[in-house]
Amino acid sequence: TSSTTKELERWLICFFIGALTGAIGVIITVSIEALSGLKQKWLNNLFHPTSAEDHVNSFVPVLVWCWLDTSFVLISGAMCAFIAPVAAGSGIPQIKCFLNGVRFPKVIRLKTLIVKVIGIVLAVSGGLVCGKEGPMVHAGAVLAGGISQGNSLTLGLQSSVFEHFRDDHEKRDFVAAGAAAGVSAAFGAPVGGVLFALEEAASFWNQPLTWRIFFCSMTSFMSLNYGLSAVKTDLQFGNFSAVGLLNFGKFDNSMWYYYELPLFAVMGVIGGLLGACFVQLNKIITINRIHLRPSRLAKTLETGCVALLSTCAYIVMLYINPYCRDETQNGPTDAAISMKEFQHLRMNCGPHQYNTMSLLSFGTPETAVKSMFHEPYDFFHSTTLLIFLPIYWLLACCTYGISVPSGLFVPALLCGATWGRLVHILMATLVGVDKISDPSVYALVGAAAGLAGTVRMTLSLCVIIIEATGNLTLALPITAVLITSKAVGDLFNEGIYDTHIHLWGVPILEWEPPPNSELIKATGVMSKPVVGFRSVETVRNLYSELASQNHQHNGFPVTDANYGNYQGLVLRTHILLILKNRLFYDPSRPADLLSLTELRSAYPRYFTVEETGIQEADMDKLVDLRPYVNKSVHMLTVESTLESIFRLFRALGLRHAVVVDKKLRPIGMVTRKDIARFRAEHEAVHRIPIDEFRQSHVYYD
Amino acid sequence: TSSTTKELERWLICFFIGALTGAIGVIITVSIEALSGLKQKWLNNLFHPTSAEDHVNSFVPVLVWCWLDTSFVLISGAMCAFIAPVAAGSGIPQIKCFLNGVRFPKVIRLKTLIVKVIGIVLAVSGGLVCGKEGPMVHAGAVLAGGISQGNSLTLGLQSSVFEHFRDDHEKRDFVAAGAAAGVSAAFGAPVGGVLFALEEAASFWNQPLTWRIFFCSMTSFMSLNYGLSAVKTDLQFGNFSAVGLLNFGKFDNSMWYYYELPLFAVMGVIGGLLGACFVQLNKIITINRIHLRPSRLAKTLETGCVALLSTCAYIVMLYINPYCRDETQNGPTDAAISMKEFQHLRMNCGPHQYNTMSLLSFGTPETAVKSMFHEPYDFFHSTTLLIFLPIYWLLACCTYGISVPSGLFVPALLCGATWGRLVHILMATLVGVDKISDPSVYALVGAAAGLAGTVRMTLSLCVIIIEATGNLTLALPITAVLITSKAVGDLFNEGIYDTHIHLWGVPILEWEPPPNSELIKATGVMSKPVVGFRSVETVRNLYSELASQNHQHNGFPVTDANYGNYQGLVLRTHILLILKNRLFYDPSRPADLLSLTELRSAYPRYFTVEETGIQEADMDKLVDLRPYVNKSVHMLTVESTLESIFRLFRALGLRHAVVVDKKLRPIGMVTRKDIARFRAEHEAVHRIPIDEFRQSHVYYD
Repeated sequence: TSSTTKELERWLICFFIGALTGAIGVIITVSIEALSGLKQKWLNNLFHPTSAEDHVNSFVPVLVWCWLDTSFVLISGAMCAFIAPVAAGSGIPQIKCFLNGVRFPKVIRLKTLIVKVIGIVLAVSGGLVCGKEGPMVHAGAVLAGGISQGNSLTLGLQSSVFEHFRDDHEKRDFVAAGAAAGVSAAFGAPVGGVLFALEEAASFWNQPLTWRIFFCSMTSFMSLNYGLSAVKTDLQFGNFSAVGLLNFGKFDNSMWYYYELPLFAVMGVIGGLLGACFVQLNKIITINRIHLRPSRLAKTLETGCVALLSTCAYIVMLYINPYCRDETQNGPTDAAISMKEFQHLRMNCGPHQYNTMSLLSFGTPETAVKSMFHEPYDFFHSTTLLIFLPIYWLLACCTYGISVPSGLFVPALLCGATWGRLVHILMATLVGVDKISDPSVYALVGAAAGLAGTVRMTLSLCVIIIEATGNLTLALPITAVLITSKAVGDLFNEGIYDTHIHLWGVPILEWEPPPNSELIKATGVMSKPVVGFRSVETVRNLYSELASQNHQHNGFPVTDANYGNYQGLVLRTHILLILKNRLFYDPSRPADLLSLTELRSAYPRYFTVEETGIQEADMDKLVDLRPYVNKSVHMLTVESTLESIFRLFRALGLRHAVVVDKKLRPIGMVTRKDIARFRAEHEAVHRIPIDEFRQSHVYYD
Repeated sequence: TSSTTKELERWLICFFIGALTGAIGVIITVSIEALSGLKQKWLNNLFHPTSAEDHVNSFVPVLVWCWLDTSFVLISGAMCAFIAPVAAGSGIPQIKCFLNGVRFPKVIRLKTLIVKVIGIVLAVSGGLVCGKEGPMVHAGAVLAGGISQGNSLTLGLQSSVFEHFRDDHEKRDFVAAGAAAGVSAAFGAPVGGVLFALEEAASFWNQPLTWRIFFCSMTSFMSLNYGLSAVKTDLQFGNFSAVGLLNFGKFDNSMWYYYELPLFAVMGVIGGLLGACFVQLNKIITINRIHLRPSRLAKTLETGCVALLSTCAYIVMLYINPYCRDETQNGPTDAAISMKEFQHLRMNCGPHQYNTMSLLSFGTPETAVKSMFHEPYDFFHSTTLLIFLPIYWLLACCTYGISVPSGLFVPALLCGATWGRLVHILMATLVGVDKISDPSVYALVGAAAGLAGTVRMTLSLCVIIIEATGNLTLALPITAVLITSKAVGDLFNEGIYDTHIHLWGVPILEWEPPPNSELIKATGVMSKPVVGFRSVETVRNLYSELASQNHQHNGFPVTDANYGNYQGLVLRTHILLILKNRLFYDPSRPADLLSLTELRSAYPRYFTVEETGIQEADMDKLVDLRPYVNKSVHMLTVESTLESIFRLFRALGLRHAVVVDKKLRPIGMVTRKDIARFRAEHEAVHRIPIDEFRQSHVYYD
């Protein structure tokens, strides 16, 4: 039967989304490893040539390093600025908005995906303080959007495959699956991926949907692992050890003592405070970026400056770090084993030694996180960490928001792991190293605190970390630290993603209605006067209303001609299609109706009213809207409270609803923007100006 | 501020729910181990006395075994039948109904909990084919209900603590957390617990709520592990290795080959078919049980008969199994180590040997599952498994539904693991043992298939199994097998829990609206004539309507006195409280209103209309309902479709809504029952008689 076919097609689509997301993950990883490997080998040879002289003039390698990094990042920045501005950043806030029910233009495009993938490879190889994990989520979502719709504007593809999935609801479900697949591939966390999609998608929990998302997430995980095991020489083909793009490594010595739990809670407080500072500083930078309205060229140059600054900072850190280690001193830990020879820089160290800072500032961020997690107690000296932490933290703060694809997870993890190890060194000095748990536990707890303080996600983050470590023993400390870190951070500001979303002016709906919203009536929420049509309306009225700019919604109430009684809603897109197809009303013969195919073919990029080609001669003709009126819509009365309206919109993913008076006449319209205007701050509610939702020139240009 | 205090209290309550659920888990485990340990030691001594003669007359031990089991189970059955009938079974379907929004009497009671805990200890120790995991979920839910409400009818406790959580919505959230804590403790699966609660609670996904549920689940997991590590001598105190009540043990040799994936899918088909048969057979048995309307005594005797039958079956299986093993032959696997000496029965084997069947039919079900998972390839002969499987399967089918607390998870897992090992033996014979993966992988895949075919849960089950094995490597085969098993099972019937829920006649709402529900209008759904009140109504009208039996809802539409316009809903309980407090309308003075405390104190066990003490003299007085009318309610029009009504009820957890005509007059009422009547069967929709929802005498007696 047809509904079974549709269901099978959904599963098939999810399989392809997962498989391709995993493949993209393989491509990104392999490219980054190849590119940064070449860079590191070259620089290593320049810094320490095998020829006789022991100390070379390190002016040349420094210049080469700066030139390489800056040009990598400039290419990435230029691609973003000129081709797909929406590809900048991690993509997680954009996907969050999309899944929340906001139309976010150009996010789900193949062009965006290509820029994102090339851009992130260049940005990470160029030594920017950013990770490849956030962009993976975006990549998965774009793949989902593209595959499920069976067409691509970028490729000029217009097929009729899967055309029955061309509506907002279906597309959103697939994009959620794609986001899950992205997380799954990025962190080797299939369950975490599902939870991420649910936490961000936040739609009604539906068993079959969730199951499909999980299947997609699992396919992606397996596809990535198969791919990596085929490509990487150090892995056996078909090996399914939980890798993921960001491998946390095995946590074997993960025993902890119950008297450390309060200390972990304190670390949560530190994480929350640092996270709140990070968000606040980044917010100030971002506001300035928005107000300056930089040109595309200026955006590109900014990326180059940040890259140059980062590279200079790395070089300075390497030169001022006095701690060296013998090459033979390598412990048998995972990190040391996975570390390639050319990733150790000698710099100002003696022969057969390497600078310990080179693990943090010369290797890829992934190597740095791994060495934080797994190197033994005495590997990093506290001075090394104290030099690294503030500089890296500030760089991360500048980097998030520039015009390159850049994830925030790895920088946040690395900063957290760094101060986590510092706490471990402090505790070891105070109470002795044998009374406390391993540095790896402290690094992991710090990393979790740092991440939670910045992004403020909860369950999904917890599961992602548990899955990435593959260890349930540390679940309680991680939970404890996430709870305190998020709670402390929330005292000061919102998470980094929500902050950016609000700065962009996107009308996103929160989890719960604002406080005291049960006291606000529909009349205080709705926009008026309401723009509506009669059930048989003149072309002139339709045309002029659709052309005007004084309304913000896509659905219009239709009233009957005689009494003004509310009949239901008609969509803007349907009216446009009627006008374009010149389906005018003629009482003498049966009406021609739009076919479902015609309605679908236009999804999701509709045309403007001018493009309908309506001439002055048609203006007095009539259009019968009755066949297109959706009568089964939710009505709001003047007595409806903001609370119940909020829950209705949130739970059912509504975009608009009509408020009627006691005689069923439409008197106002409530859209997401009307609701999102009410924003809670310290238990009070502000109604922000509706114009705030239009200053989104950063992304809507 | 007050809302922060409330939030902190919620976290505190969740902590206690988790901690106590874990404690209950410890009590149940330790009691079962002690009681069945004693039983096993005694029987072992009787079967194989240390005195000289080699073969004793085994008539005495057989009698003792039968007598012990039957009396254990009879006590359990009698407690259930006479004290708390709702404690019978696993409790999962009852909790599912509760969380779906159905009022299920007596489920959340301390009395039920006590009977459940003692009953399950006796039932498992008495050798019934059942597990203790389902009842743990129920136990967690009861604890959650009790703690969050701060009172207990059983103990006669009436405190004012947490009284602001006394409403359906808050209570339901806590019960969901309790259910999660139960799963977490039962399987050592904190994330699985959260997913279980979400999958069954199926309410709108809310980030703060989910996070709290996870905290509760994690607390329970840790509480259980701390408790067990303190009580059990073989565990180090403070050891946090993922134990849980049902320990799957470590899966070390869990490598599998990608060419086995199709075979696993075939195993999924087998699991689905067997599961569907199980459900169908159990359904027939249950229908007969319901139609016989057995007395409490008959129910008790039934439990005794099943117990006797089970024990006889075990003994027969032991005698006809010819396969023995030397005691010294014990491999170094987990299962063999954890097996106590007295759990090996020699029976018809030689000296220093034991009967391999004794691992399956003499130990606890947990030991049996573990030995299936971990014993080496040649441990169980196929004949042993072929004897065991059909008998155990039939016993499980008879047992589920009798009047004792009994979980279904372990029997389903054990049956599945048994045929999983049979498939392994078959494959090893066909292609060679070194070309396929370990028997443990086959046993686990079979167990997953068996469970999924019976209960048809999806994501939560998958995560529970992954967490219980602590191994992500097997995630893909498990996912594959769960998908096929559920899909095949769903072709034939519903899962065992849903089947029982429908047999009880509970108006539960599914995930999605029935097919073609967009064609059914509100007028075809609603009940009429509508029972409503004017905004100022006579006591006589109120009294007679509340006393009458011709409506099924707790909310009544209120219309204004002049025009009959719909104003909003008033709750039955509010009217009863007004009558009881004699708050009659007197236009000459300001009205006395019910305080919030008065409204809360009556929750959730309200009184009948007769108990209001209204006399004939009061009958012509008036009551002003206006202060109690909830005006912010969702209205349905005659044009609303069943689809949109369904989604509204499901997403917002509504219990009733009013249908109004074009002049805003209430013309019908839609309740959950009106919606649940539409049931999909093979793409067609049946409207079942509303009477079906009343034949719930099994549980509503």
